[in-house]
Amino acid sequence: MKTYLDCLPCFMNQALRVGRIATTDEKKIKELLDSVGAMIKDFSLDNTPPEMGNIIYQKIREITGVNDPYKKIKEANINEALSLYPKLKEIVRKSENSLLTAVRIAIAGNIIDFGVNKKFNIANHFLEILEQDFAIMDFDKFVEQLEKANSVLYLGDNAGESVFDKILIEELGKPVTYVVRDIPVINDVTEKDAIDSGIDEVAEIISSGTSAPGTILSLCSDDFSEIFYNADMIISKGQGNYEGLSDVMRSVFFLLITKCPVIANDLNVKEDDIVLKAINFGSSPN
Amino acid sequence: MKTYLDCLPCFMNQALRVGRIATTDEKKIKELLDSVGAMIKDFSLDNTPPEMGNIIYQKIREITGVNDPYKKIKEANINEALSLYPKLKEIVRKSENSLLTAVRIAIAGNIIDFGVNKKFNIANHFLEILEQDFAIMDFDKFVEQLEKANSVLYLGDNAGESVFDKILIEELGKPVTYVVRDIPVINDVTEKDAIDSGIDEVAEIISSGTSAPGTILSLCSDDFSEIFYNADMIISKGQGNYEGLSDVMRSVFFLLITKCPVIANDLNVKEDDIVLKAINFGSSPN
Repeated sequence: MKTYLDCLPCFMNQALRVGRIATTDEKKIKELLDSVGAMIKDFSLDNTPPEMGNIIYQKIREITGVNDPYKKIKEANINEALSLYPKLKEIVRKSENSLLTAVRIAIAGNIIDFGVNKKFNIANHFLEILEQDFAIMDFDKFVEQLEKANSVLYLGDNAGESVFDKILIEELGKPVTYVVRDIPVINDVTEKDAIDSGIDEVAEIISSGTSAPGTILSLCSDDFSEIFYNADMIISKGQGNYEGLSDVMRSVFFLLITKCPVIANDLNVKEDDIVLKAINFGSSPN
Repeated sequence: MKTYLDCLPCFMNQALRVGRIATTDEKKIKELLDSVGAMIKDFSLDNTPPEMGNIIYQKIREITGVNDPYKKIKEANINEALSLYPKLKEIVRKSENSLLTAVRIAIAGNIIDFGVNKKFNIANHFLEILEQDFAIMDFDKFVEQLEKANSVLYLGDNAGESVFDKILIEELGKPVTYVVRDIPVINDVTEKDAIDSGIDEVAEIISSGTSAPGTILSLCSDDFSEIFYNADMIISKGQGNYEGLSDVMRSVFFLLITKCPVIANDLNVKEDDIVLKAINFGSSPN
C-alpha cells in the first residue's frame, strides 16, 4: 500500500506517542518531532507507511537511547493474553467450526496494537470481535488453500496477539513457520516475545530480517524473501504487514482489524471492521 | 498559551485539512506538508500555536495561490446563522436573564470552527450548548465589569459565529468595537464577513492588523495594541484568541467552547466544555 497524505500527520502522532513512552524529556521529544517533520519532504508517497515507521523508530533509538520502549507493555500484554488462553481453547473446543473460531480469535487478537492512535481493552474488545460480522470473508479460499498446503508461513504482528496466533496455529494442522521482526519496533512481536507467548511449542520461529513495523520485502533478508516466495500458504496478520504486502505478486491471506481510516479505505471497508482477505488466490506462485 | 508537543502533529493535520479545501492537487498538498514539517524544527514551543497557524496559512497562499480557501464555507455558515437569528432573538426575549442567554448564544456560536479537527452541525449542536452547564462561569464578574465600562472591545473569532456575537452585542447596552482579522485565515471573521453578519449595524468594526488565526499582540498593529490596552472591557471569543491572550497583563473575559484537548487541559476543563473565564479581574489596567 502506498502512503496517503493522511499518513503524514499520523507519522508525527506516532513519533509523539512513542517518544512519550521512551522518555519524559520534552526536549528529546521535540528533537524527535523536529527530525520526523524534517524527513517528510524526503519521503515519497510511493513508499509504504511502515518504511517511515522504520525511520521514525531509528530516530527514537538514536535520540532517546531506548531500544525497546514498549518492553514492559509487551510483557503485560503477553501475560494478559496468556491468562485468557485456557478460555480461548475452551471456546474453540466447544465451537461448531473450530478452524473458523480460531481464525476469529487470531483476528480479535489484532486489537493489541500500539502503532495506531486508539486505546483498547483486550478482554472487553476481544469478546465483541468474536461476535462481529466479517467485512471481507474469504474463509472458503483459506480452507481450500490450507488443505493443499504442506506447510504454512505465518507472519506475526504484535506481542500479545501472538498468544491468539498460537490458538490458530494449533488448529491449522500443518507445520507452521512463525515470522517475527528482527529487532523491537513499536509493540511488534520479536523472537523473545514469540517464545514468551509459547509459539515455540507449536511452530518454528524465524526473523524476517527487518526492523520495520511491517513486512516490506525490500527491507527483509534475502533468506526470508526466498522462504516467502516459496511458501505453500501465507497468513499475514495486521495492518503493518498488509501495508507492506498488499501489492505483492503471490497469494497471501490477510487477517486484520482495520484500525485506521486510511487502511480501511484502501480495503474498501470501514474502520474497526474485521477482515479475512485473500489476494492472488489460485494464481502462480501458490 | 505556549505551544504543547501535542500541537505539532496537529499543525500537520491543519495543513492537510486546509490544503484539501484550497486545492485538489495532491502534489501541492504534499509540498505544503513538506514545508510545514520542515518548519517545525525552527518553531519554539515558547511561541503560541496561532503563530504557527499564521505561517501555515502564508504557505498555503504561496503554494496554492488561494487567498481565502474557506470563502464559500464562511458565506454558507453566515447565511445559516442569519437564518437562526430571529429564533435566537426570540429565545433572548423570552429568557429570564437576557444578558446571560445572549452570552450562552455567543459561546454556542463558537461551535463554528474549521481550525480544529471536529465536525459540527450548527443547528443541532447549538441547542445542546444552550442547555449545557458552564465549566468555568465568571458571569458575576462579567456583569460587574460591564456595568462600569463605558465601552467594550469585542474580539471576534469565526465567520458565522459573528451572527451569534451580534446577539450578545445587542444585549451589552454599551458602545462596542468589534475586532476582525486583517486578511482571511481559516474561517476567521474578516471585515467583510462581519458586515455580511450585520455587525456594522450594532458595532464599529476594526482590524487587529494580524493575519494570524488568533490575537497575538506582537503580530497586531500598534494602533490595535493601544486600543487593546486602553479598553474598559474586553470580550475575547474562541480558542485562537485565548491561545494568543491567556498570559496577557490586563483583564479579559474569554468566551469559548474547548474543542481541543490541549486548550481544555490548559484551562483545566474537559473537551467540549463551555467557558466564561475572567483573567486579571479587578487588576490594573482595567
